[in-house]
Amino acid sequence: MRKKKYSIGIDFGTESARSLLVDIANGEEIATSVYVYKDGVLDEFLPDGKTKLKPDFALQNPEDYITALKVTIPDVLKKSRIKPEDVIGVGIDFTSCTMLPIDKDDNPLCFSEKFKKNPYAWVKLWKHHASQPEADLINEIANNRGEKFLQRYGGKISSEWFFPKILEMLRHSPEVYDKAHKFIEAGDWIVLKLTGKEKRNLCSAGYKAMWDKHSGFPSKDFFKALDPRMENVIDEKLSDKIYPLGEKAGEITSEMSELTGLLKGTAVSVSIIDAHAAVPASTVTDTGKMVMIMGTSICHMVLGNELKFVEGQCGVVEDGIIPNYFGYEAGQSAFGDIFAWFVKNFIPNEYQNEAKKRKIDIHSLLEEKASNLKPGESGLLALDWWNGNRSILVDADLNGLIIGLTLTTKPEEIYRSLIEATAFGTNKIIKTFENYNVPVNEIYACGALPEKNKLLMQIFSDVTGREIKTVLSSQTSALGSAIFGAVAGGKKRGGYNSIKEAVKNMAHLKNEVYKPIPKNQKIYAQLFKEYESLHDYFGRGANDVMKRIKKLKQNVIKTNIQ
Amino acid sequence: MRKKKYSIGIDFGTESARSLLVDIANGEEIATSVYVYKDGVLDEFLPDGKTKLKPDFALQNPEDYITALKVTIPDVLKKSRIKPEDVIGVGIDFTSCTMLPIDKDDNPLCFSEKFKKNPYAWVKLWKHHASQPEADLINEIANNRGEKFLQRYGGKISSEWFFPKILEMLRHSPEVYDKAHKFIEAGDWIVLKLTGKEKRNLCSAGYKAMWDKHSGFPSKDFFKALDPRMENVIDEKLSDKIYPLGEKAGEITSEMSELTGLLKGTAVSVSIIDAHAAVPASTVTDTGKMVMIMGTSICHMVLGNELKFVEGQCGVVEDGIIPNYFGYEAGQSAFGDIFAWFVKNFIPNEYQNEAKKRKIDIHSLLEEKASNLKPGESGLLALDWWNGNRSILVDADLNGLIIGLTLTTKPEEIYRSLIEATAFGTNKIIKTFENYNVPVNEIYACGALPEKNKLLMQIFSDVTGREIKTVLSSQTSALGSAIFGAVAGGKKRGGYNSIKEAVKNMAHLKNEVYKPIPKNQKIYAQLFKEYESLHDYFGRGANDVMKRIKKLKQNVIKTNIQ
Repeated sequence: MRKKKYSIGIDFGTESARSLLVDIANGEEIATSVYVYKDGVLDEFLPDGKTKLKPDFALQNPEDYITALKVTIPDVLKKSRIKPEDVIGVGIDFTSCTMLPIDKDDNPLCFSEKFKKNPYAWVKLWKHHASQPEADLINEIANNRGEKFLQRYGGKISSEWFFPKILEMLRHSPEVYDKAHKFIEAGDWIVLKLTGKEKRNLCSAGYKAMWDKHSGFPSKDFFKALDPRMENVIDEKLSDKIYPLGEKAGEITSEMSELTGLLKGTAVSVSIIDAHAAVPASTVTDTGKMVMIMGTSICHMVLGNELKFVEGQCGVVEDGIIPNYFGYEAGQSAFGDIFAWFVKNFIPNEYQNEAKKRKIDIHSLLEEKASNLKPGESGLLALDWWNGNRSILVDADLNGLIIGLTLTTKPEEIYRSLIEATAFGTNKIIKTFENYNVPVNEIYACGALPEKNKLLMQIFSDVTGREIKTVLSSQTSALGSAIFGAVAGGKKRGGYNSIKEAVKNMAHLKNEVYKPIPKNQKIYAQLFKEYESLHDYFGRGANDVMKRIKKLKQNVIKTNIQ
Repeated sequence: MRKKKYSIGIDFGTESARSLLVDIANGEEIATSVYVYKDGVLDEFLPDGKTKLKPDFALQNPEDYITALKVTIPDVLKKSRIKPEDVIGVGIDFTSCTMLPIDKDDNPLCFSEKFKKNPYAWVKLWKHHASQPEADLINEIANNRGEKFLQRYGGKISSEWFFPKILEMLRHSPEVYDKAHKFIEAGDWIVLKLTGKEKRNLCSAGYKAMWDKHSGFPSKDFFKALDPRMENVIDEKLSDKIYPLGEKAGEITSEMSELTGLLKGTAVSVSIIDAHAAVPASTVTDTGKMVMIMGTSICHMVLGNELKFVEGQCGVVEDGIIPNYFGYEAGQSAFGDIFAWFVKNFIPNEYQNEAKKRKIDIHSLLEEKASNLKPGESGLLALDWWNGNRSILVDADLNGLIIGLTLTTKPEEIYRSLIEATAFGTNKIIKTFENYNVPVNEIYACGALPEKNKLLMQIFSDVTGREIKTVLSSQTSALGSAIFGAVAGGKKRGGYNSIKEAVKNMAHLKNEVYKPIPKNQKIYAQLFKEYESLHDYFGRGANDVMKRIKKLKQNVIKTNIQ
C-alpha cells in the first residue's frame, strides 16, 4: 500500500484564519485549527488603541496573519499526528481585495516606527469603504474615457477594490504611497512570506485589479488621468507578472519551515480569493454549474466557455477560477443577515417561549412554522434589498420592501417571504446569465445555511426550477485551497497534475439533492413575475422613492448631529 | 337655584351597550353602566348553540338590547341617586346598519317559534358580510341604470348596508321576507319599543339606505330590477317617513317605564348612528371641523354647506349629522388594529423585558423609543392598507406595504412608520375633501388612542398641517346621545331647544391642543408626496400586484381545503 499524502489549505477570513489538513487521496478532512485574529477588524482605532480611524475604515494587522500560520499549521500537524514529510503542498486563500503596502524587505510599512501610527500604512480589509470617493472618481474617468475594462465588471468598479484603495492612500497620505515599495494583495503577501517569491495571483488581479489576460492592467494614460503621480503605478508599485491558479508559487523557506513546522521545500500554490476557492471544493470544474456560497450574503459563481458582458455581474475573468474557462461572479449583498435581522428584532415572546420549551432554536421553529405554509399562502412578496442590490442592479442605495401585509400576517409568513425574496433575487441573476448566453443548468450550494435549513433549499429549487446539490465540506474555501496545494505538490510527490483530477478525488457532494416540485414552481413563476415588475419599477428609475427616502434619512441624521 | 336636570344617552355598540347619565347644564358625566351582550356577536351558531351559521355571518340577539335597557338604566339611576323625574330625555345611538325583521306587533321575527331556527330572521349586525354578492349585484344594476344615488356614496354600496341585507334575505329565505311586517334599523326599533312609535332616523336612512331628503329612497323601478318581488319594498316593508336628528320621537310608555325605571312620558329622541353621535359630543356643529373617531379604524366626519360628490367618501347626507348641513363621512379601515397587530406579533424579548422592568406597557415603550426618532429618520415609508382601503380608493383587496427596510431597521422605526402611514392616509382624505371644496380647517380627535399616545397626535398634526383638538369625554357616542336626549326633552323641561345650544353647554374639549411643528411638516410634506405616488401606483391600477397576490393566496387556501 502506498503511503498516504496530505495537503494543507489555509483560509484567511475576516475574523479568523483556518488551516485544514486533508488526505489527498479522497479529500478526507483530518484536522482543523482556527486562529481568531487578536486585532480582528480595526474600524475604530489602530492596535495602539489610541489612533482613531475615520468612518468607513476597516483595517487589519498583518501580524495576525503571521501568527495564524505559526499557530494553526503546527496545530493541525499535532492534532493529526501527520509527519511534515507527508504534507506535500500548501494552498492559500484570502479575502479580497485585502491589500497592504510593503517595503523593500517585504515587510508591511505599518511595522515600521515611522508609519505605525499612520492608518494608511496598514492592511486595508476588503470591506474598507472609505475609498468610495476614489471609486466614484475612477468610475467617472473610466466612463468618460470609454475604458473597455468596465464591461467586465457590470459597468462599475467597487470601493472595495485595489486601485480605489491605492488612490485613497495617495490622496490622503502621499508619504505612504511614496515609501511603499509595493502594493500587494494580502494573499500574495502570505505566499511571498512563505516562499520568498512574489507570485501575484490571477484571481485577485482579475476580479479586483482590472487585470485581463489579453490586455493586462489599465493603461498608463488611464492611471495618469486618475492622478499624474499614478502614471507608472504598475511598473513602480506592482508587478505585471500574474500567475494562474493551481500553479506552484514556490517552496517553504527555512525561516518559514521553522515558523510552521513544515519541511523546507514543501510546495506552496499561488493564492486565490476565498469565495472562488469554494468552486473546486464544490466539485465544479466545468460550465453550466452555478456555485452559491451562502453566508451573510450570497456569492454566485459559474464557468463559461465564452466572454460575455453580463449585466450587473461583479466580474468575469478568463482563467479566474478554473484555467481555460471564463469565471463569472455575481452576488446578492444580503442573505443570512436578513434572517438574523428578523430573528433578532421581530420575534414575539410566544415564539421564544415555544422554542425554549421544545429545546429548539428560533430559526428551527420558524422554519417549521413556515414549512406548514404553501407557496403563495402568505400573500406576501418582498424585495430582498436590505443591504442594497449587488447583482444585477449594482446599487447600494436600494432597500427592502414587503408588500401584502394584513392584520393576520404572522411572523412565519414574513420569514418565509424573506426566504422567497432571496430566492427570487438569485433567480433574477440566473435569468440574466441565461439572457447573456451563460448557461446555468444546476446549482451547487455551500455554506452553513444550506446545511441547516431544508425549507430554504427547497424554495431555492422551486423558484429557480433547478436541482440543487449541497456540498459535503463545511469548510469549502479551506478545502479548495488544499486542492490547489495538492496540485502545487504535483503527481510525483503524491499529489495531482491537474485541478480536474484533484477535484475528482478530493471534492464531494452530499447525497441530498433538492428537486423542484412542479406545483410549487408554477406558483413561484407567478410570484417571480410580480417580483420582476417591482424589481424594475423600484430598481430601474421609474420610481426612485427608495433612494429619496434614504437620502432624506441621511440628511435628517446629519442635521441632528451638527 | 334652579333644580338640576339630566339626560341619558344609550350607546349600543358591537359587544355591549352603555348608558350614560349626564348633567344637562354642563355635560358632566354623573354615572355610567355597561351591559355586555350575553350572546355578543353570533358568527358561528344561533343562540341555541346548534344552528350553524354560514361564513361571513354576524348576527345578534335583540333580547340583548332589551336586557341592556333593563339593566343599565336602573343602574345609572341607582348609582347617581338621581330621581326619575329629573331625567327629562333619553337619546339612543346604535351601530349601523344593524337591522332586523319584525312582525305586526313590533316583535323580532326571530322570537317566534316558527323562525327562531332561521338565521335570516335574526338581527343582522353591521359587520355581517354574507350579503357581498347582493351588494355586488346592487352596484352592477345601479351602475348600469346610471342611478344618481351612487354618487353620494363614493360610487359604491357596501355589503354592510340596508338593502344588500334585505336582498340577501329575500334570495335565501323568501318566507322570512314575506312574513316580515317591517325591516327596521335596530336603533329605530329600540325607539319604537321605548315609545310605541316608528320614527325612522335620517342618519341611518341617509348613510345606509340610500335615502335622500329630496329624492327619497331609490325608485320602484330600481328595486324591481334587483328582484321583481322587491318592487314595493318601501311601501310594504319600510316607511318613507324619515325624521331628523334632535327631534323628539315620542315618550316612554307605561311598559317601558316599568322596565327602565324612567317616568312614563319621558322624552325619547330619534336615534342616530353611534359614530355620528360623536360629532356633537366633540363640540362640532358647523363646517370646516373634521371629527376623527380613532379606534380599531378611523371614521372621519365633517360638515359642509353644499352637496359635493367627494371621491371615495362613505357617504354624504343632507341633515345627516347636524340639521341644515351636509354631513360627510369617510374612513380608514384599519388604525388601532395595525398597532395591535404589530405589538402582538413582532416585539422581541429584549423590549418585553425592558417594559416589564420599567413597569410600563409595551405601547408606551414603543411610543417613547419612536419619539426619539426625527421625522424621516427611520428611512421607512408604509401604505396603511392592512385591512384594505376604505377612503378614498374603496377597495378591500388592497393590502399593506413597507418600503425602506435595512439590516439596521428597529421595531420602533417600523412602529413610527405605521403611525405615519395612518396619518398620511388621513391626510389623503383631507386633501380629497379639499379638492372637492369641502374645507377641513381643524381636526377634533376622539377615542382611546388620542388620549394615550401623544406622539401619534403630534404626527397627525405635523402630517396634516392642522391643529388637533382632543375631546374631553371618553364616551363620546353616549354623550352625543345624551345631548340629543336633552334636546328632545326641550327647554321647557330644563333641556334645550336646539342642538347647537345643547352642544355649547354639554360638549367640551381638553386643554391639550396639538399644533404642527414647521420643520416636521416640511419633511412630512416630502414623504407624503412619496406616499401619494405609491398610493396611486398600487391603488389605481398601474400595478395590481396587491390584488393578484391576494387572489393567489385565496386560491392556494381554497385548493388546500378541498
